[in-house]
Amino acid sequence: MNFLKVTDIDEIEELILKKIPSLKGKKEMCKLEDSLGRVLCENIAADLNVPEFNRSTVDGYAIKSRESLGASQGIPAFFTIKGEVLMGEDSSKKLERGEAVYVPTGAMIPEGADSMIMIEFCEILEDTLLVHKPVSSFENIMVMGEDVREGDIILKKGAVITPENVGVLASLGIYELPVFKKFRFSIISTGDEIIGEDEEYRMGKIRDINSYTLSLAIQKFGVVVEKKIVKDNFETILEEVRKSTKRSDIVLISGGSSAGNYDYTSRVISELDGGEVFVHGISIKPGKPTIIGRSNDKLIFGLPGHPISSMVVFNIVVKKLIESLYFCGDSDDYYYGVLSHNLHSTPGRTTYQMINKTVENNEIIINPIFGKSGMITLMTKSNGYIVLGSNIEGLEKGSRVRVYRF
Amino acid sequence: MNFLKVTDIDEIEELILKKIPSLKGKKEMCKLEDSLGRVLCENIAADLNVPEFNRSTVDGYAIKSRESLGASQGIPAFFTIKGEVLMGEDSSKKLERGEAVYVPTGAMIPEGADSMIMIEFCEILEDTLLVHKPVSSFENIMVMGEDVREGDIILKKGAVITPENVGVLASLGIYELPVFKKFRFSIISTGDEIIGEDEEYRMGKIRDINSYTLSLAIQKFGVVVEKKIVKDNFETILEEVRKSTKRSDIVLISGGSSAGNYDYTSRVISELDGGEVFVHGISIKPGKPTIIGRSNDKLIFGLPGHPISSMVVFNIVVKKLIESLYFCGDSDDYYYGVLSHNLHSTPGRTTYQMINKTVENNEIIINPIFGKSGMITLMTKSNGYIVLGSNIEGLEKGSRVRVYRF
Repeated sequence: MNFLKVTDIDEIEELILKKIPSLKGKKEMCKLEDSLGRVLCENIAADLNVPEFNRSTVDGYAIKSRESLGASQGIPAFFTIKGEVLMGEDSSKKLERGEAVYVPTGAMIPEGADSMIMIEFCEILEDTLLVHKPVSSFENIMVMGEDVREGDIILKKGAVITPENVGVLASLGIYELPVFKKFRFSIISTGDEIIGEDEEYRMGKIRDINSYTLSLAIQKFGVVVEKKIVKDNFETILEEVRKSTKRSDIVLISGGSSAGNYDYTSRVISELDGGEVFVHGISIKPGKPTIIGRSNDKLIFGLPGHPISSMVVFNIVVKKLIESLYFCGDSDDYYYGVLSHNLHSTPGRTTYQMINKTVENNEIIINPIFGKSGMITLMTKSNGYIVLGSNIEGLEKGSRVRVYRF
Repeated sequence: MNFLKVTDIDEIEELILKKIPSLKGKKEMCKLEDSLGRVLCENIAADLNVPEFNRSTVDGYAIKSRESLGASQGIPAFFTIKGEVLMGEDSSKKLERGEAVYVPTGAMIPEGADSMIMIEFCEILEDTLLVHKPVSSFENIMVMGEDVREGDIILKKGAVITPENVGVLASLGIYELPVFKKFRFSIISTGDEIIGEDEEYRMGKIRDINSYTLSLAIQKFGVVVEKKIVKDNFETILEEVRKSTKRSDIVLISGGSSAGNYDYTSRVISELDGGEVFVHGISIKPGKPTIIGRSNDKLIFGLPGHPISSMVVFNIVVKKLIESLYFCGDSDDYYYGVLSHNLHSTPGRTTYQMINKTVENNEIIINPIFGKSGMITLMTKSNGYIVLGSNIEGLEKGSRVRVYRF
């Protein structure tokens, strides 16, 4: 049996980038309506002001504010109505002393006016406007550039596109975005016992799970080019992995979890063109028996066969790496809650504990979920995990903990 | 000016379903690999056990546990090795007294054995196995049905498919899922000042925002059949809305926010075949000037023109309605935090306050974001909202509040 020289989880990313310095996110353009969840690969700066003109925020009359000074219900201020600005019109009107112009919400304030009096506080007598309330300078006006100023960075490189933030892009007339090209993944499930969708079930066999869980997890930021099941035969695995490195940027090999199998994947990687294994285990639980290597500039992961272990490694290693290559900062996929039980950690290993949550008195209670290794129902019962650092002995009931979503 | 008879936010859904009793989610089948984010429209029950056989969770030897009783480093228990079970093999071996069979992790335990002794605690002398540690009954075995029992409901109607929960489906050989068909949406932006992607910008105009924000928000659970911009002309709007009711289940009309414009949308809906407006404003802030109606069994929303108001209404009315039609329970899109400032609410109206979050000492701090009505950058600066009920005067700094994501 081979002993695994484990690598610390915090050193993994740096090591990968040192081994494959060419590994980075590439650019492609994406239409605004197809951009949900995509990641910006450049800062987006405004090339114009929003609004591009002084815009009314109410229905009412544009006036010079100082002429409304002292106006009240009893002693109104008087103005001469000089027509109206139409919605969407480029107003060439210029407001002179004592004049008022009707401006609907969203339309342009004419030159010379510095405030809007809401229609509710006005009275109209033929072409005379009676104003019953003073307004202050810039009241009910959104000034040119007040929302976005020309040159402002409105979304930063690494921002994930959400329904909310496309609004500001559309308002600036930006309909195509520079985003990171999705990394291409191959998923290879190995094992004589593993059978696929089109194979008939026989007693003793196990249906492939990891290619489905990994495939859906990848869809958030990558493209699954292929997924295949390969029997435990060195030559066959070698051939299939070789093919996959040609088609993909990243190859995920999910194997059995016994020490013998890792050697298998290790040996396969070493045999590839420019093949090298540089991580032989990670100091985490679950997920320790993970190997990471490369074939020239293609990245290869040997993931544990247990579905939960492989998902944990995928999330904390593969996903985190891609987020880092995409310059994603705080991914907003965590929250805090209060731990319902004492938890022990494993000395020297960072522990990832599955949890589910309940809500009591405006507080989220975090309940650890336990089960035998390899139980797939742990995944349907949990909705996230907490991290116990390798340097702590455990966490006490009542501790406030950060919870990560899958 | 027309006064709006506002409807309470809590009564909206019941009212819609009373007016359009036929409105409900329809079923379609979806392949497992395409199911990310889809919603189950039926309970999924297991039609087999997982595991389907007593499965070893370690590499080692299957034995009768009572025969290891008292075994120790000094006084081992002796067994005769009777070959091995291969991975994926349907073992027909039957273990007799004093026998041991090698079983790798994940393989089938032979009949007659009730435990696995890990290889670490064994020594092999030709065909004799020396066991240096006692094992208890069912140690290192996952018993048939221990993970999933035949007939168990493994995922409920209304469950949103995640990478984690496809694992259990794949393990059961379920590769096609009954999911709710996505509702079809039309988005119509109205306004003389609104210009689209292909129109040249002229001073005084405003680029369409809502069709982009709404379109991306819909993509999570619906299909955008079309989005179009229509000038403020009664006949044109009527004609376009009529066409859209034929193509879609739900039509969103986003208009200006002045009282005059609502009447417009109202009048259009009333003129449609089987046309009726049944909500003339909602007791919320922002979003009060929302109208809801129908043309026969097609649902029509008149949303406020302000981008933030229209997104708020979309989230708390349209999205909530669909989630309810999809039987989605807790959508897990909220968390709790501590309010950084006092907040006042508007009496009689449920207030939705945009916020962003910061983290201090393992606690999420919720900072309200303010800005002038119609400012689109409020959306890029916020990452959620909190709800102030219509029956409270406000919330004090330091209160623990629930935050919803968009």
